[in-house]
Amino acid sequence: MKIGKVTGSVWATRKAACLSGQTFLVVDVENQQVVAADHVGAGVGDRVLLAMGTVASRYCMDAPVDAAVVAILDAK
Amino acid sequence: MKIGKVTGSVWATRKAACLSGQTFLVVDVENQQVVAADHVGAGVGDRVLLAMGTVASRYCMDAPVDAAVVAILDAK
Amino acid sequence: MKIGKVTGSVWATRKAACLSGQTFLVVDVENQQVVAADHVGAGVGDRVLLAMGTVASRYCMDAPVDAAVVAILDAK
Amino acid sequence: MKIGKVTGSVWATRKAACLSGQTFLVVDVENQQVVAADHVGAGVGDRVLLAMGTVASRYCMDAPVDAAVVAILDAK
Amino acid sequence: MKIGKVTGSVWATRKAACLSGQTFLVVDVENQQVVAADHVGAGVGDRVLLAMGTVASRYCMDAPVDAAVVAILDAK
Repeated sequence: MKIGKVTGSVWATRKAACLSGQTFLVVDVENQQVVAADHVGAGVGDRVLLAMGTVASRYCMDAPVDAAVVAILDAK
Repeated sequence: MKIGKVTGSVWATRKAACLSGQTFLVVDVENQQVVAADHVGAGVGDRVLLAMGTVASRYCMDAPVDAAVVAILDAK
Repeated sequence: MKIGKVTGSVWATRKAACLSGQTFLVVDVENQQVVAADHVGAGVGDRVLLAMGTVASRYCMDAPVDAAVVAILDAK
Repeated sequence: MKIGKVTGSVWATRKAACLSGQTFLVVDVENQQVVAADHVGAGVGDRVLLAMGTVASRYCMDAPVDAAVVAILDAK
Repeated sequence: MKIGKVTGSVWATRKAACLSGQTFLVVDVENQQVVAADHVGAGVGDRVLLAMGTVASRYCMDAPVDAAVVAILDAK
């Protein structure tokens, strides 16, 4: 997984029907923006673990997403 | 997922039979061109969310595509 | 998918048995060489769409390939 | 697979329920940080082989992880 | 697939049980080191085709590997 920092969220009115009810966070990963589904409850500023690929989709009830927040790292 | 901007489309007469009926958009993602199947109805200039990999194929009825537009981001 | 340009082909006498009968093209994608299975009939100079990953394997009858030509783009 | 060097570990109290009981190591791979599940027993300083993607998830009982330590390389 | 050149091999005493009996070659691919399972019989100096991802695992009897040598290119 990659460690990233949540910087915001995105909203889409027009989307795949199966994406309804998913929350999408913008996560900064090595200076690149990744949009990830979140079922853990992360917020802006949290350092998170991202799982990418089919793994993320399976974790999100097979929704067509390829990135998901799977953990919020404890503050050091 | 990655955020991209739709810049055009491509057309192919000779293609895998199972690609018939799919619309292919050219999307600029971090200055790289990705061609993605679109079932959401995006157009040139739209900012979109792209899902990549097997996830995209599954979303497109198992067609041999590895990128799909899954959402059109709302204008800020 | 990625857009690439076919620059040649490769040949291998010693290979996985399940690769017999597959044609392998060398495709230039953003200045990197990708070797892709071709069932569409592309030739040197053609601009093609490449599907990558498990998707490509499934398209090629589950052969152990991770890239496949799925379409030949029409000349503009 | 990629060769990496274990540099530490991460801990997360808030996480996907299915991640409980997994150990997560921070592995330096070509100067990038990857967080990988470990069931082999690697420690800081070990040179390890990482498997990435769905493969890693399957190896970790289908947990939502996309990287796993699958071997500790013998010292030369 | 990617074309690479075999530069050596690695050995691991401590590893995932399901990796026993696999041979792991170090392959130089565009100046990056990839470790790939080999069932074709490649040796140092051979130019090989690598399949990556789930495809490689399936080719290696579902072992937790994400890269496999699937062909040895004929000398030109």
